[in-house]
Amino acid sequence: MSFDDPIAALATYASHPSVSADPSYAEGMVAAREHVTRLLGDLGFAVEVIETPMHPILLATRGDPTWPHLIIYGHYDVQPADPFDLWTTPPFEPVVRGGRLYGRGVADNKGPQIVHMTALARVLAKNPELPLRITYLIEGEEEVGSPSFKGFLEQYKDRLDAEMVLVSDTGSPNPEQIVITTGLRGLVALEARFKGPRMDLHSGVHGGPVFNPLRAVSEVCASLHDDQGNVNVPGFYDDVSEPADWERKELLKMPQTEEDYLDFIGSPAFKSSPRYNALESVRFGPTLEFNGIGGGYQGKGSKTVIPSESFVKITCRLVPNQSEEKIAALVKAAISDRCPEEVTVDVEVTGGGDPYVVIPPGKPGSRGDEPELLKRAFDATERAIEESFGVSPIYMREGGSIPIIGDLKQVAGLDSLLVGLFTPADNLHAPDESFHLGIMEKATTAFEAIFKKLSGSS
Amino acid sequence: MSFDDPIAALATYASHPSVSADPSYAEGMVAAREHVTRLLGDLGFAVEVIETPMHPILLATRGDPTWPHLIIYGHYDVQPADPFDLWTTPPFEPVVRGGRLYGRGVADNKGPQIVHMTALARVLAKNPELPLRITYLIEGEEEVGSPSFKGFLEQYKDRLDAEMVLVSDTGSPNPEQIVITTGLRGLVALEARFKGPRMDLHSGVHGGPVFNPLRAVSEVCASLHDDQGNVNVPGFYDDVSEPADWERKELLKMPQTEEDYLDFIGSPAFKSSPRYNALESVRFGPTLEFNGIGGGYQGKGSKTVIPSESFVKITCRLVPNQSEEKIAALVKAAISDRCPEEVTVDVEVTGGGDPYVVIPPGKPGSRGDEPELLKRAFDATERAIEESFGVSPIYMREGGSIPIIGDLKQVAGLDSLLVGLFTPADNLHAPDESFHLGIMEKATTAFEAIFKKLSGSS
Repeated sequence: MSFDDPIAALATYASHPSVSADPSYAEGMVAAREHVTRLLGDLGFAVEVIETPMHPILLATRGDPTWPHLIIYGHYDVQPADPFDLWTTPPFEPVVRGGRLYGRGVADNKGPQIVHMTALARVLAKNPELPLRITYLIEGEEEVGSPSFKGFLEQYKDRLDAEMVLVSDTGSPNPEQIVITTGLRGLVALEARFKGPRMDLHSGVHGGPVFNPLRAVSEVCASLHDDQGNVNVPGFYDDVSEPADWERKELLKMPQTEEDYLDFIGSPAFKSSPRYNALESVRFGPTLEFNGIGGGYQGKGSKTVIPSESFVKITCRLVPNQSEEKIAALVKAAISDRCPEEVTVDVEVTGGGDPYVVIPPGKPGSRGDEPELLKRAFDATERAIEESFGVSPIYMREGGSIPIIGDLKQVAGLDSLLVGLFTPADNLHAPDESFHLGIMEKATTAFEAIFKKLSGSS
Repeated sequence: MSFDDPIAALATYASHPSVSADPSYAEGMVAAREHVTRLLGDLGFAVEVIETPMHPILLATRGDPTWPHLIIYGHYDVQPADPFDLWTTPPFEPVVRGGRLYGRGVADNKGPQIVHMTALARVLAKNPELPLRITYLIEGEEEVGSPSFKGFLEQYKDRLDAEMVLVSDTGSPNPEQIVITTGLRGLVALEARFKGPRMDLHSGVHGGPVFNPLRAVSEVCASLHDDQGNVNVPGFYDDVSEPADWERKELLKMPQTEEDYLDFIGSPAFKSSPRYNALESVRFGPTLEFNGIGGGYQGKGSKTVIPSESFVKITCRLVPNQSEEKIAALVKAAISDRCPEEVTVDVEVTGGGDPYVVIPPGKPGSRGDEPELLKRAFDATERAIEESFGVSPIYMREGGSIPIIGDLKQVAGLDSLLVGLFTPADNLHAPDESFHLGIMEKATTAFEAIFKKLSGSS
């Protein structure tokens, strides 16, 4: 049976090089997809392969329509493995070393999928008629931004009449402390291009009266934060919902101080908006960040040029209840208003997504009208983690964005339970990615208990 | 005789592809050098080829040590000709079209050299014993920044006991109006690198407390000009010597208005320091210009990164009596002082040169103790240009920098008479470079008169 040896099951899965970004890995994508199809078939799922413009999505179902309905999300694609020469052993030949399995995708996201499936296999072995309806959605484009996923959700919306989603594609601080992620920041991406003279000019021959587009980009960017560290865009903080007291307290349980964090980052000092301390700022605060500024000569040495153009690429991270559309409009207006009259500016909004937050049922500020299965899932997970890891999980928002979580909420009205099974030591998206076998074992035991509870067994 | 047909002499000279920047043109460099050696030999000069680390300098002499001594500067190297496909006819096969000779280097600087030599040939034909000592310095590295020239001057200083230098390697506004360049701006080049976190960070996962090095470069750069358009560095203007009234008035004779100039540049508006109007600002004002700003993601689309570093490349243009060293120190200190404490900055001075100005003898503000030959040269040139072109020359400073002019002043104490023989229509450093045959003919006639006057003949 596929799940008698879960480490071997994961090693086989991870041996298929399913790099979604690189067309030369098309065979690996097929092999990984077929491998998951077999695993889900072994578990008794009916698996459909849904075509998309890029990589198919697996839609797998089990159970009676009258049973409580759980959706489990995962992705079978992985990040590119290069630079290959920085790997201790080849990325697509998984091996165990020092209590970890090494290989591309073992933590992100193949390992957590094997955890869920192994737990399910054990529960189903004892109770093949487990009264829990499960729909698996396993996509192949997560590492390239899930471009097909929202359209798929809209098209298959009537198949998604569930009560909640289970996802293990977030992180925990270390193998002892599991985090349940309760919020993800939203995103607005913008690009501004400043244009001055019609062509690049010699800065000796023409320097003096010409307003340099690099001066324009500097002045506008410098205006977008105040001296205290706040974003200086009128209305930016208007809709920000502050975290609940219990969330700030929960953060104190995290095994990391501001000093630890600064030491890891390596900057001389932090500077947050005074509304938040450094650790809070990442999780509870909105940002306006410059991801790229450019213009003029970028090579070695000097070139005496006044460039014709300059640009800045900006992303804002949003927190509840900020709206993607409103913040995009405010930032765009601030840039346009502040552009010096000696140049022109063109501001384009290039992407975005609203923030997501789920207050665990029963916690202060929670909705109270959550679906029965979601309530049971949070309760069961807290207890199962306590039992299996010996420490209660921490409920914590995360600074990043996972657009599909917002899509599932927006299209299907579903909240997600996000149980973090990888840690910073797992080297996600980097050479020598690994998955901690201790987490794997304890989490499998925990999910056995969780699936039992979700089905109503005790 | 070589100079019976000066256009043919120039065409032959320009047919040798003497691109100093590109080692694959080594043969063209040798051929051009040998061609000038022959031309100078025909004029009766003794020519020495002085080796340098890159391309040799020609040092050629005629005349008795007791005669007044004139140095003539020129360069036998040319700019690269690519992109070749934008040339109407091949760059190294010079042809006449519409009153112009087309070919790489015909205006910069081979044509002006042929003008000087042809004039000299005609004078010497009538008076082989012309009592004027002449030293030609013709280098082969001008288009790559003259790296060997200052060392050469220092080594051969005792051969440079002249009274002045004659150079035709500057511009005039059009073929009707000749400009005598009376000043060149100096230069300071700096590069500042700002460092924040030890590595690039995900702007979602870590955005909030981390001070982005792109914010630092923006804030520091934005601080370096004030709202009026002045450079905002304490002490920057302290030593600036204002142009004389006659220089401002001379500028009014230039056949260009601010509106013409803005139309050419194509910016929405100009912004100069209030000390100068737009046309004055280029010639009489110092600048601090951003030649390149960069950091973070420079490609298409967006990348959610907080970069570890950012940089700015700056050049200042200096006017009399600003000192290269002092301005470099002031700008460096301003950047360091204003660097936010959350990042570090490293400022490197990468190059420089002092400004140069020569007030024509007899004009208000001139020294009064100029060498006799320099006085005679300015006087003779004004009259010869008037006679030959029908319009008096304009005396005007230029925005660019020609370091060798400053080197000649600093090492040998020599002022230069800079007679501009190319115009903006000549496409210097660009495809379809050409030299105006009307200027060529009139200037040759003018230099005949000038050389006669310099020798004391009338």
